[in-house]
Amino acid sequence: MSEEITLDLARLVLDAQPFSSLIGARLVGFEEGSAVLEVDVRDELLQQNGFLHGGVLSYAADNALTFAGGSVLGASVLTGGFTIEYLRPAVGRTLSARAHVVESTRRRALCRCDLVMVGDEGERTVAAAQGTITRIE
Amino acid sequence: MSEEITLDLARLVLDAQPFSSLIGARLVGFEEGSAVLEVDVRDELLQQNGFLHGGVLSYAADNALTFAGGSVLGASVLTGGFTIEYLRPAVGRTLSARAHVVESTRRRALCRCDLVMVGDEGERTVAAAQGTITRIE
Amino acid sequence: MSEEITLDLARLVLDAQPFSSLIGARLVGFEEGSAVLEVDVRDELLQQNGFLHGGVLSYAADNALTFAGGSVLGASVLTGGFTIEYLRPAVGRTLSARAHVVESTRRRALCRCDLVMVGDEGERTVAAAQGTITRIE
Amino acid sequence: MSEEITLDLARLVLDAQPFSSLIGARLVGFEEGSAVLEVDVRDELLQQNGFLHGGVLSYAADNALTFAGGSVLGASVLTGGFTIEYLRPAVGRTLSARAHVVESTRRRALCRCDLVMVGDEGERTVAAAQGTITRIE
Repeated sequence: MSEEITLDLARLVLDAQPFSSLIGARLVGFEEGSAVLEVDVRDELLQQNGFLHGGVLSYAADNALTFAGGSVLGASVLTGGFTIEYLRPAVGRTLSARAHVVESTRRRALCRCDLVMVGDEGERTVAAAQGTITRIE
Repeated sequence: MSEEITLDLARLVLDAQPFSSLIGARLVGFEEGSAVLEVDVRDELLQQNGFLHGGVLSYAADNALTFAGGSVLGASVLTGGFTIEYLRPAVGRTLSARAHVVESTRRRALCRCDLVMVGDEGERTVAAAQGTITRIE
Repeated sequence: MSEEITLDLARLVLDAQPFSSLIGARLVGFEEGSAVLEVDVRDELLQQNGFLHGGVLSYAADNALTFAGGSVLGASVLTGGFTIEYLRPAVGRTLSARAHVVESTRRRALCRCDLVMVGDEGERTVAAAQGTITRIE
Repeated sequence: MSEEITLDLARLVLDAQPFSSLIGARLVGFEEGSAVLEVDVRDELLQQNGFLHGGVLSYAADNALTFAGGSVLGASVLTGGFTIEYLRPAVGRTLSARAHVVESTRRRALCRCDLVMVGDEGERTVAAAQGTITRIE
């Protein structure tokens, strides 16, 4: 990749997304083939039963998948789509969305993301996602 | 369904979701087999290129699918998971997430959702979703 | 579309797929924006409980989605991927995979497919799929 | 799991699926949390360009995911649905569908599957799948 993206550069991209600021997301990991996005749980992000809203999980999956894809495809990428499956209610202090590239070609990266809740009692995977990221020509 | 849910009742559920208030979502349609959720575009909901953030689309898909499923399964439901595929950048004044039940059994509803941007020049489908909603016993 | 595809031409493509012959699939509908693929149930296509194997349903979804996409994008297409969700056991005489284009751009078509079992007692939707078809440059 | 399933028992289940015999699938790995299904490439399984048909890949993904889920949930399971994304044409001697459980509860297992083509020049991941397997009560 001629246009190598560093963690600092990737953070600038995230900070340029107003919606990510509204959510309060931060990029804590970014290297070739992977990206980790974190969101601290707060009242505004919950659903009616006090769990983290599924929409926050799907936002984090979408964004982490895209950053992971961008780590191998370059900065000009778009998300073709993704699937998320929820396994348990999301409870904890921080959501950690951990994405990695399964395989990529010159133009597409197939990525997966584990959605992990981190709390006082350790970690728990609550959902999992998979998606395809495409390089814009 | 003995426990029929009306639009008013469904709105109470939506209003009880702090994250839906943060997004600014409103339920504009809810009847047996379908639900329509709207979100007005504002700066806080954008990504770095000025389009509506994919996370807002996925939030709306998730929630509209769940409400559509709940319209036939009752109030105690959870979203097993969903897929969203993006076709074009989301530009416009209002996002309209239009979900309907394709088919359901006593315990599960298979639902689809069209993500439509509404603006001065009419409407445009920018993404589509599909997911399964499950009744909690 | 300059290179218009007719039902006859689409059938030639299907007949050129050895796996579709092994399955015994036939194209019964093909027009701009939609395609219908049928498979008659026979013992060889079942799983261990006597239902049509999920792999036959996923084959039919994959192929019907691709033909629907090809009906608007032209003959040179490939399937980026798809999601299928199963709602009930597939019982009946014939599987009818009914796909249509939800929306398309010059290069991509977002398609959906209903998997319907047809039998003596009428029709029943047993699964639903969604996928994206891409035009090869 | 009181009702532990061995590789031999799992093979009996696969052999009881007529469609798996038609495809020519074999189970080469099965332990708690994972399953590996193989299909040798032959002319009958190809599409019109000489590649392994996507329907064979989706069959293998579906079945490998289900066996992986069954390895932790027991023999009475069903596949709720799955997503498959294709990255490159499937060329090689043997398809190896390698599934594992990402996380499971008492009733559901979230599984992923890598679709790998094995040939004279080594291995290549050509597609990836993710799905949810549910225990039947």
